[in-house]
Formats: sequence, C-alpha cells, structure tokens
Amino acid sequence: MSNSNCYSIKQLAEFIGASFEGDGDYLIYALASLPSAKENDLAFYTGSAYKKKLKGTSAGCILLQENQKEEFEGNKLLCSDPYLSYAKLTYLFRKKIKGPASIHPSAVIANDVFLGENVTIGPHVVVEQGASIGNGCSIGANSFIGEDSHIGSNSTLYTGVNIYNNVHIGESCTLHSGSVVGADGFGFAPSRDGWCKIYQLGGVRIGNQVEIGAGTSIDRGALDNTIINNGVKIDNQVQIAHNVEIGEHTAIAAATAIAGSTVIGKRCTIAGCVGIVGHITITDDVHITGMATITKSISQPGSYSSGVPMSETKAWRKNAARFNQLDDLARQLLLIKKEIKKKIKK
Amino acid sequence: MSNSNCYSIKQLAEFIGASFEGDGDYLIYALASLPSAKENDLAFYTGSAYKKKLKGTSAGCILLQENQKEEFEGNKLLCSDPYLSYAKLTYLFRKKIKGPASIHPSAVIANDVFLGENVTIGPHVVVEQGASIGNGCSIGANSFIGEDSHIGSNSTLYTGVNIYNNVHIGESCTLHSGSVVGADGFGFAPSRDGWCKIYQLGGVRIGNQVEIGAGTSIDRGALDNTIINNGVKIDNQVQIAHNVEIGEHTAIAAATAIAGSTVIGKRCTIAGCVGIVGHITITDDVHITGMATITKSISQPGSYSSGVPMSETKAWRKNAARFNQLDDLARQLLLIKKEIKKKIKK
Amino acid sequence: MSNSNCYSIKQLAEFIGASFEGDGDYLIYALASLPSAKENDLAFYTGSAYKKKLKGTSAGCILLQENQKEEFEGNKLLCSDPYLSYAKLTYLFRKKIKGPASIHPSAVIANDVFLGENVTIGPHVVVEQGASIGNGCSIGANSFIGEDSHIGSNSTLYTGVNIYNNVHIGESCTLHSGSVVGADGFGFAPSRDGWCKIYQLGGVRIGNQVEIGAGTSIDRGALDNTIINNGVKIDNQVQIAHNVEIGEHTAIAAATAIAGSTVIGKRCTIAGCVGIVGHITITDDVHITGMATITKSISQPGSYSSGVPMSETKAWRKNAARFNQLDDLARQLLLIKKEIKKKIKK
Repeated sequence: MSNSNCYSIKQLAEFIGASFEGDGDYLIYALASLPSAKENDLAFYTGSAYKKKLKGTSAGCILLQENQKEEFEGNKLLCSDPYLSYAKLTYLFRKKIKGPASIHPSAVIANDVFLGENVTIGPHVVVEQGASIGNGCSIGANSFIGEDSHIGSNSTLYTGVNIYNNVHIGESCTLHSGSVVGADGFGFAPSRDGWCKIYQLGGVRIGNQVEIGAGTSIDRGALDNTIINNGVKIDNQVQIAHNVEIGEHTAIAAATAIAGSTVIGKRCTIAGCVGIVGHITITDDVHITGMATITKSISQPGSYSSGVPMSETKAWRKNAARFNQLDDLARQLLLIKKEIKKKIKK
Repeated sequence: MSNSNCYSIKQLAEFIGASFEGDGDYLIYALASLPSAKENDLAFYTGSAYKKKLKGTSAGCILLQENQKEEFEGNKLLCSDPYLSYAKLTYLFRKKIKGPASIHPSAVIANDVFLGENVTIGPHVVVEQGASIGNGCSIGANSFIGEDSHIGSNSTLYTGVNIYNNVHIGESCTLHSGSVVGADGFGFAPSRDGWCKIYQLGGVRIGNQVEIGAGTSIDRGALDNTIINNGVKIDNQVQIAHNVEIGEHTAIAAATAIAGSTVIGKRCTIAGCVGIVGHITITDDVHITGMATITKSISQPGSYSSGVPMSETKAWRKNAARFNQLDDLARQLLLIKKEIKKKIKK
Repeated sequence: MSNSNCYSIKQLAEFIGASFEGDGDYLIYALASLPSAKENDLAFYTGSAYKKKLKGTSAGCILLQENQKEEFEGNKLLCSDPYLSYAKLTYLFRKKIKGPASIHPSAVIANDVFLGENVTIGPHVVVEQGASIGNGCSIGANSFIGEDSHIGSNSTLYTGVNIYNNVHIGESCTLHSGSVVGADGFGFAPSRDGWCKIYQLGGVRIGNQVEIGAGTSIDRGALDNTIINNGVKIDNQVQIAHNVEIGEHTAIAAATAIAGSTVIGKRCTIAGCVGIVGHITITDDVHITGMATITKSISQPGSYSSGVPMSETKAWRKNAARFNQLDDLARQLLLIKKEIKKKIKK
C-alpha cells in the first residue's frame, strides 16, 4: 500500500464517535465498496437497496446503522449516519501530501510576496507582486497567482490553476487543475464599430472551505466583486459569470453555467448541465434538477425542473414536431370545448 | 489604490467626447456601480429601471443622457449612450500591465522565433520554432505557442494559454487562461477495428480584436482552416469544432458548443449553453436565446429559441410525461374535430 | 511546405491497399477538400451529394469508390471506403514530431521515475515519484504527471495536460491540452455543519488507443476506479464523473457530461451537449443525439433523443408557455372524448 494507512476498528470507532461490535483490534487497511472489499477493508451500508451486495461482501468490517446491525454477522461499526461517517473516515485514508513544506527553486516568486509558515510551492509556480499565501497552503506545479491576490491558510491549489490579480480565496479551500479564477467577465457595449470592451474592474471574493472543480471558471466582477460564500462546493467545468453571488453551502454540479449578476441563496443544490440566466435571484434551499433552464427568479424554496424526457429517436421526432404546434393545438381544444358547450345548451 | 488612476471630470468628458455640468476639476478615482459608489467614484445611469438606485447613490459624478439630467443634482457627464461611454471609460481605469517589456529568463524560446518590439514574455513560456510574436504582445506565464504559429501585434495571452502549431492570431486579440487553440478536431472514420484517426491537417485563422474566454477551445481544421473573423467575442468554456467559421462581430456567450463545419454569419449574438449542430449555415444578424438547440440552417435574420420553461418539479413531471404522448394527443384532437364535423353535417 | 511530405500516387495506392488509374508517378504533396484542392493535392469523394464540388475541383487525384470512377476523368485511387482510406492517408501527411527523443533540462523529474526508450519530455514538465512513462511517449510542455501514475508506450500528451496521482493510461493514447485526469470526484456528505468532503480514494484506468480532447476532465473514483476502455474517443470539454465506466470504442462528442457511477456500453456514439444522469446503465450500440437528457437506463440498442426543436422566439414563447399546461390539456381532451362517447350512446 503506497499510503500505508492502517487503523484498528477501535481507532476508527473513536474517530467517528461510533460504537463497534466484534474484534476491536482487527486492522483495517482501506475503505472499499461492498462488492470489491477484501478481508482488511471496511465498507459502508446505507440500507436495503444494497442488501444483496451486503450478503456477498468479503469486507472485514461494515459501517452501518444500529437498527440494521442484524443484517451483518462480522465486525461492525454502529453509527447514526453511515454515509456521513464514511465521509469522515475517508479523511484518514486520503492521499497525504508528503514531506516537509518546501519552495521549489524553479518557482518564480516576486520579492514582496507574503508567504506564511509551512507553505509548499511546486515547480514552475509563478506568484506575482503583492500576493500573499497563508500558513499551510500547497500550490501545485505550473500554477499562477496574480498580483495582490490572496490565498487563505491551509488551502490547496492543485497543478495548473490560474488565479488572476485581485482575487481573494479563503481558508481551507481546494482548487483543482485547470480552474481559472478572475478572468474577465464577458462585457462589451455595442457601438457602430462593433463591440467596445468593458474592462472588468472588480475582483473575486471566495470564502472558506470552498471547493472548485477541474476546468471551472469564475469571472471577476465588472465593477463590484463576484462572490462565492463559505462552504460552497463547485464541481468541474462550471462557469460562473461576473458579479454572481453564491450563498453559503450551496453545491453546484458539473457543466452548469450561471450568467452575470445572478444571486443564488444558501444551501441550494444545482444539478449538472443546468443553465441559469443573468440578473435573477434564487432564494435559499432551492433544488434544481439536471439539464434545467432557469429563466426567472425563484422566490420559494423547493425543487424546480425543466426539459423533456428522452425516447427512441423515431418517436421523439414525431412528438418534437408537435411541440411547435402546441399553442395551435391548445386553441383548437378550446374551440371544441366551446362548441360542445353550445350544443349542450341547445 | 493599487492602480492610482485619477482623472478630473473635465478630463473624462474630453476622453469620451461628453459635456459636463458641475465641478470640472473634481477628481474621480474609480468607476463604481450606483449602490457601491463613494464620493470620488463615477457611476453610470441608463434609465428609469435604476431610478431608486440613482436616488440613493453617493457617487461623486454620474454619467447619463442629456434628457435625464434633471434626475441627478450633483456633478454629471452628459452623453448620448451612457453604457458605451462607461465602456470607454473602463479603459482608463483598467489594470495596467506594468513595467517595461521583458523576456523572462525561464522562458524557452526557439532560436528562429521572430519577436517584435516591446514584447513581454512571462516565466516558463515556451515558444517553438518558426513562431512569430508581433510588437507589443504580452504572453502570460506557463503559456505555449507552437511551431509556425503567429500572434499579431498588441495581443495579450493571459497565463496558461495553449496555442498549437499553425495557428494565426490577429492583432489586438485577448486570450484568457486555459483557452486552447488548434487542438485536433474530433475526426475518426469507422472501421472494423474501431475508429481510425483522421489526423487534422488544417490550422486556425483568427482575425483582429477577437476575445477568447477562459477554458474555451477552438479546434484546428481537418483539411481547411477553422476561421474566426475580426471582432468576434467568445466567452468562457465555449467549444468551437473543426472547420467552423464565425462571421465578424458575432458574440458567443459561455458554455455554448458549435459542431464541425458550421458557418455563422456576422453580428450574430448567441447566448449561453446553446448547442449548434454541424454542417449548417446561420445567416447574419441572427440572435439565439440561451440553452437553445439549433439543428438546422437559419436563413432569415431574427431571434430563435428552443427549450421548455421551468416549473416546480412535481408539476413538471406530469407535463414532461405528456410530452411523449404529444403526437398521440394531436391525432386524438384531429379525430374529435372530424367527429364533430360529421355530427354537424348530420 | 513545412512538413515536406510527398508521395507518388502509386505509393499512396500501396499504403491504403487501393488500385489506381492514371499516372502512378504523379506526386501528391497534400490532402485537401474538393473546393480548395490544387493540382498536386489529393481529395476524396464520398458520393453524389458532392457531385458539384467534384466537377469543379482542381485536385490532381481523387480517391473514390470503384463504381463511381466514371464521375472523374483525372488520376484516381479506387477503393471500397473512400472516407476510411482518406483517414488512413492523413497519417502520412500528419504533423510529425521532429527530432530525436529528448528530455528538456527544465523538466523536473523525480529520481525514481521509470522512463522508457525514445521518450520526449518538453520544457517545464513535472513528473512525480513512482511514475512511469513508456517507450516512445511524448509529454508536452508544462504538463504534469502525478505520483505513481503510468503512461503507456507511444502515448502523446500535448502541452498543459494535468494527470493526478494513481492514474493509469494505456498505450497509443492522445491527450489534448487542458485535459485533467484524476481530479477528485464530486463527493460530499450532508451534515449539520455543511458538506463533509468524501476524499476520493480510487484512481482512473484508461485503456489503449484512447483519445481525450482539450479541456476534458475525467475524475478519479470514490473507492473503485473510473474506467475508460480501449478505443474510446472523447472530444473537447467532456466531463466524466467518478466511477463512470465507458465501454470499448464508444465515441463521445464535445461538451457532454456523464454523472457518477454510470456505465456505458461498447460502440455507443454520444453526440455533443448531452447530459447523462448518474447510476444508470446504457447498453452496447446505443446512439444518443445532440443536447439529449438521459435520465434512465437504456437496455435496448438503438437511437435515443430528447429536446424540442427551435423556432422563431415569438412563436416559441407561445408554444413553450403551453408546455406547462400539457397535463391539463391532455386531461381536457380525455373529458371531451368521454363526453362525445356518452352522446353517441344516447
């Protein structure tokens, strides 16, 4: 095992505040899914949908709810929320960033950059003047941090991350490869000679515990800042336009795009491939399903959707063609109803 | 202020060809939105939708139309198009690229590369043989310019831009981080042994004053070139496939994808998340709304759309299920109409 | 010609196993499309849709089917599948990676990395400990290969590619600029304090002859691996989430996103901008049309679609508004049918 993490069941129970049944000294080398778990692996069980897989598992220990404990005979960890407990355990078995902090000699760091303690900076990183990097940060190879930008303590930038100037990132954030924060918002004024560029004078403010996925872009504001609040989680290839604000603990899945100046509330979940127009407001606790188009503000918490279901292409062609007759069909239906009413009266 | 731009109202009026009322020597330090503007900021006002914000502003000067001048009592700049004038003013307050031109010693530049005057090349840039970079260009850190590619004068590549070989970029262009120009088009011929790669032998030709957003990709042509004409503006995460041609001054918003060999006219606007199939032609002055699917050529200027509106998920499920019955419903309606007609005849 | 590839018609016939008519010693300098071909170019002809272009071409040689040979008078190559033969010929005329293999001195390569023979590593590449790179590989400038990752022989990584740790890539693969393999899957467990990160402990396994487009991201698995099988072709800006498995020879066009744990069969074709939800299974030989939303498993081969056709925005608004009345309209129709039936009985 390259990571050589290894814990006894007793240790794991303690770490997540669970009780256990079976051999507390039994060693767990890894976490695994029910079907692929081996004798020194721990797997988790979240309920009856996975009963078959539980029966067939070779896992050396199962993490499950107290009231499901009869379903497994071997070693077990008992807790109230197995999925959350599993999430916590992944921390123990994660890929550790090894070795003492170090600044690679090929990195190009301006003279007046503030570097905290225990900062690791990889090869070919560039940090421009006036930037600051907090304690315990790790900046991956080939990343760039622009002038006057700030990375809060204990944040991790993977390789090839590009941070423009005047971007403030909070503490304990994670940015994945290819993410870009602070590029120009898409602002142009029409003129007789074509589009006149609106230089984007705002910045970006990102809170603590924010995760930003691979290839995601968050544009700087036109005048004011683009704002991502604490605890927001953003998946890969998400596009966040200038002057958007995202509320705390909102999660946004991959390939979603949010247009300029839209404000999204707290604790929302936005599924993948969603498109949200600009200049609208979405309240707290809104959930949007995948591939939906959101074209107006949402003022009530709840779940919202749009789109049409798939079908075989042949059938779909017929139905889709009717879509462009919908208004006409509805009017015909109304006429028929009137006619029938008239006849009844007669 | 890190940029220390500062202009008198008189100077600003002169720059945009506007008249002013109030104190012409009053100093403006920054542009700002109406709500966040402070006493030495200038804000713009584009009409009655923002009346409330105008009343509440602390801005030291307002940019507005002559016929709206009664709406504000303080210093004002009077012009015919406040939004365009604001766009022009952002140029004065933009983030300046500082210092004299310089080639960072860590850059790897082939011997026969042509470098114009006043070129700035950042750390860890790589420029391959036969490439040329025009006067006044700035190439950001960790960018790559492939063999025989050309960057026209006064163009800016931000950090982490990848330009393959045989890509010609015009003058005064801007490419944002993570953009990729000249990667292979997606060309494979089916064979008994799976997909046979069609090596992409064309290049990319990009005109002047083109802007390309973060994470946008523009593929090289299969045999002929992919072409982006003068003044085209492309937002983040746009995908432009091989042999596409985009007409002058067309603007394309984020997350839109255009499939191979499609030709798009001049002065079109394409909103975000649009999908456009390959091998079609879209004429000049076409406007496409967000999340639309364009599956056939458009020969008339105008506005085009597709998609369905959002609703609460519960209601949406019912309506969406009916979509797959649409053709059937339309046929039933026709039958009913016939039946009613028959009865009337009786 | 910068590449100075040049072949006689006889040589080309031999390479693709075709016969020829005309001057076998005639020299072909390039491949070209019918309209742009010049006298020393070869163009291909795939059938009557291109008849006009064939008449007008100046190509020095045409590649076409035996039974179409009467349609062109000049030199010709005769084969059974001109498109496939053209694909094979592009190999001869491709951009060659020149010069002997070399490791650029600015690359940062850990001590225990295994490098095969004839490996080319560009400037500013970083290869971490425990990684291995097979014979004949080419790693483009500014790319990164993480700890314990493996690149199979004869694979090409273009510039700015980011490979995280524990990613295995097969032989003869091609990865384009800005692609990211092995970033964290989007896994968080809800808790009272917000989202609890699920560290992603799996890796990525990619087979042979796989092509991955610019800006595409393939996430690492949560516990098990994300798997891309032999011969899969993936276009630009595709998002593949954790624990997805893609079957052999499936092709996925640009801007498509596939959510977590979905399994896709062999020889599928998935068009651009498609969204596929997580935890479903799509069987072999399924074809999905552009912009479709796939929300449930597909167990039968065939073609599947969703979406609505475009129309002028004015007409679209009316029809789209009716979408949210669809269930109501269908119920009204049913009532009318009942009423009519009742009357007939009377």
